[in-house]
Amino acid sequence: MLSQRTIIGEALPDVAGLTVLTPTSSQFDPAHWMLSGVTSNERYVERDEKAALVSRQESLGRPAATRAALIPIRKNAAWWALTQDERRRIFEADSRHIAIGLQALPAIARRLHHCRDLPTSEPFDFLTWFEYAPQDEPIFDTLLRDLRATREWTYVDWEVELRLVREV
Amino acid sequence: MLSQRTIIGEALPDVAGLTVLTPTSSQFDPAHWMLSGVTSNERYVERDEKAALVSRQESLGRPAATRAALIPIRKNAAWWALTQDERRRIFEADSRHIAIGLQALPAIARRLHHCRDLPTSEPFDFLTWFEYAPQDEPIFDTLLRDLRATREWTYVDWEVELRLVREV
Repeated sequence: MLSQRTIIGEALPDVAGLTVLTPTSSQFDPAHWMLSGVTSNERYVERDEKAALVSRQESLGRPAATRAALIPIRKNAAWWALTQDERRRIFEADSRHIAIGLQALPAIARRLHHCRDLPTSEPFDFLTWFEYAPQDEPIFDTLLRDLRATREWTYVDWEVELRLVREV
Repeated sequence: MLSQRTIIGEALPDVAGLTVLTPTSSQFDPAHWMLSGVTSNERYVERDEKAALVSRQESLGRPAATRAALIPIRKNAAWWALTQDERRRIFEADSRHIAIGLQALPAIARRLHHCRDLPTSEPFDFLTWFEYAPQDEPIFDTLLRDLRATREWTYVDWEVELRLVREV
């Protein structure tokens, strides 16, 4: 664990390290806290945006990508009461979420996990996992700065940023 | 249980009756099969459509609505590989899903449950629950006939229809 920073909302308990578990994992030690999420279909991306993302994005697990970040996020009730067209308008027309993300490719690899609809009452709505090489950290910093300045982020009421370094 | 009909895909085991359990229920008898789903935010409805739906729709639990139906549905991989704009276009521009649903209001009350992203590997993607008075059954039959004739329904690869009568 390199650093833990609370952007908005409560802090998480301090941790010395983090383990990524698979759904069938039995390694969970109940002395620690756990966040769960699932990958799912895309909720906002359109076909031309998807093509642009796919042509530039890299996979997780690149040997040079020894830095990672886990960013759990919750959006407020006002966001979830919006209809699909309203959420899409804020997400991309207003906030350029996809366009901002494209600028960080291929340096930053990313995987989004959804938690809101899990039956276990997860504290966050999303867990995003990022991987990058140490020299690309400024690209990651810019990505976070730009996203947090958007209108979409005015609906974020809990966000914690955990930066990590891979244990070899 | 009034009837059980397989529209496409495998049949479910025959059952004599059906119980609706809450998430915290401990009444589940493992001798029987169970389907789980969660309510969630809307995935396609836009603001003007939402207003039209809300102004006409009735709640579950009306005393006169002694008939119910549970329709578990799975959509194929081709559907889930579509982007949001493609799914929305098929859902409403091509298939008029919301418009067809509006024609059944206020007679038919409805609640959609999502199962696709549950960690328990549910067999279906959606469980839709409908309630109506016996004399409104023809409206329900028309709703199902019209939806099943749409382009959206060409992506449905498993659908079972369970019609029920309330036990007083």
